[in-house]
Amino acid sequence: MSQSLLRELDLASREVNATINSMFTHELEPKAIYDASKHLIHAGGKRLRPFLTLKACEIVGGRRGDALPVAASIELVHNFTIIHDDIMDEDERRRGVPTVHVLWGVPMAIAAGDMLFAKAYEAALRSAGSVSPERLLEIIATITNATISVCEGQASDMLFEERRDVSEEEYLDMVYKKTSAMLEAAAKVGALIGGGSPIQVRKLGDLGRYAGLAYQMIDDILGLTADEKILGKPVGSDIREGKSTILIIHALAHADEDQRRQILSVLGNKEAKADQIGEVTQTIQSLGSIDYAANKAEVFIDKAKAQLSSFPSSSSKDTLIDLCNYIVSRNY
Amino acid sequence: MSQSLLRELDLASREVNATINSMFTHELEPKAIYDASKHLIHAGGKRLRPFLTLKACEIVGGRRGDALPVAASIELVHNFTIIHDDIMDEDERRRGVPTVHVLWGVPMAIAAGDMLFAKAYEAALRSAGSVSPERLLEIIATITNATISVCEGQASDMLFEERRDVSEEEYLDMVYKKTSAMLEAAAKVGALIGGGSPIQVRKLGDLGRYAGLAYQMIDDILGLTADEKILGKPVGSDIREGKSTILIIHALAHADEDQRRQILSVLGNKEAKADQIGEVTQTIQSLGSIDYAANKAEVFIDKAKAQLSSFPSSSSKDTLIDLCNYIVSRNY
Repeated sequence: MSQSLLRELDLASREVNATINSMFTHELEPKAIYDASKHLIHAGGKRLRPFLTLKACEIVGGRRGDALPVAASIELVHNFTIIHDDIMDEDERRRGVPTVHVLWGVPMAIAAGDMLFAKAYEAALRSAGSVSPERLLEIIATITNATISVCEGQASDMLFEERRDVSEEEYLDMVYKKTSAMLEAAAKVGALIGGGSPIQVRKLGDLGRYAGLAYQMIDDILGLTADEKILGKPVGSDIREGKSTILIIHALAHADEDQRRQILSVLGNKEAKADQIGEVTQTIQSLGSIDYAANKAEVFIDKAKAQLSSFPSSSSKDTLIDLCNYIVSRNY
Repeated sequence: MSQSLLRELDLASREVNATINSMFTHELEPKAIYDASKHLIHAGGKRLRPFLTLKACEIVGGRRGDALPVAASIELVHNFTIIHDDIMDEDERRRGVPTVHVLWGVPMAIAAGDMLFAKAYEAALRSAGSVSPERLLEIIATITNATISVCEGQASDMLFEERRDVSEEEYLDMVYKKTSAMLEAAAKVGALIGGGSPIQVRKLGDLGRYAGLAYQMIDDILGLTADEKILGKPVGSDIREGKSTILIIHALAHADEDQRRQILSVLGNKEAKADQIGEVTQTIQSLGSIDYAANKAEVFIDKAKAQLSSFPSSSSKDTLIDLCNYIVSRNY
């Protein structure tokens, strides 16, 4: 990551954290649900979604400060979804720390996620002073529709775990709903609060959408190839959970019978050992599936960047291009 | 229940169901999450909350049809909370049918609840044509704040299960958040959409709040004394789950040592047999705790009805008084 992007992300992260913290005052009761709600927020995360909101606001000429409440809203929705996803997927680690349900139990984790979802609307409503009521309703509708997509995507993701014949098209539709729709919304609400035109809102939304698809392709790769400490969760989780990632879909489509049998013997096997995962990773690599996913990521990110062509040169534009480049160059 | 109130509730129920059904078209995918989301809605329920919304709209002179989307929104939030509550409380039956997590599993039930919460905002946003943007934002804020209260109340409810020293004051605060706040919001959003003045909105909200407190007092009684078939869930669930209901709080405060030991031996004992529950119920009855709760319900419902004193006579006013009377006379 370039030093300037790192600095920008760090600054945005501090601003968004401060906005979120201002909504979680010390007196709030009962303490357990608020502690559980804030746990993953405090554990870190790159804040890519709210960063996209701030940058989309700036590139259409809006004031960055005006976008902070909706940027916080987007981050709160994201944290709500990951608390619940971790329960559903039985993931025990995230951002390098135990997940919420591991520390507080499933019931409190469900309630903590629900709380963050409601707080996300509270955050968005704090924009009332800096945007027209009509625009604010459009922002709320955008966040709502994206969340409905996330729920549909998460449901598809779970249903796909039971299947071994998920097509690439079905997979990309699921990724759009589960991951991309919220990045699309993040960019759109930033553009909306910044006073962007309908075309600007659409283009920036499309940037977020394509960037989200690229992001997931790289995530699928990193889930198999990254350093576990930096990944913050076990390598190979996707395979153990039986997820048909782009790698698995491509590999199964190109595998011979032996390779297919080997992959299927590990896919969805929650007890699979690290060396079994390693062997399957080698097979996936030898079938060209990692290159295929990396290439798809490049194609998507080029489409994302192309959305910026009609925007005049600006430091915000440069930063958004840097952000796109970073998304496909992440390699931990 | 009076015949006229029954007819009114039935009509409102059909209207609200039609509004909700129009938001869940057949094409929506994946089918499993939508089926899970709609399961308890289709299983019935009295639709008291959306009914309160419609009546609050009418009593301030608004058009009933304008209130249907927000009435649907309130019912969707309520159904989201009960899907998640049933998971948290491990309740297996509700409205006479198996709960969502029993039929679809915990992960899909979590996602289905999340979906309904998002759909609740979608429903509220459908009012855009019949109310000013400013009012609609006020409605959305009202629903959001009530949902935050519900999350806090549910968390307190769970935390109280671990305690045997919950005070009546703490209990009533929990009931306000978990149950009353949503009835308060139901009435407020109806009054808001109907064009009510700030004082009317507050009075109708207070009616909902007091009615909610009365409702829970009666629910606590019925949970021990009702016919299981009509209750739709096992008699004595509250005791098995260790809930400090108003009955338990009163009984423990007035029990002698033997009675206290008897109550505590069954409270929170998930394996407690029906005859053990029956014995404890007799003790609770003999300590006057059921009369105490019934009396508290009467006091609350009188406060609810008193909120209507400044409204001129109308059929809506009569219906709201009927509704209040019904809430404390439910005996299955």
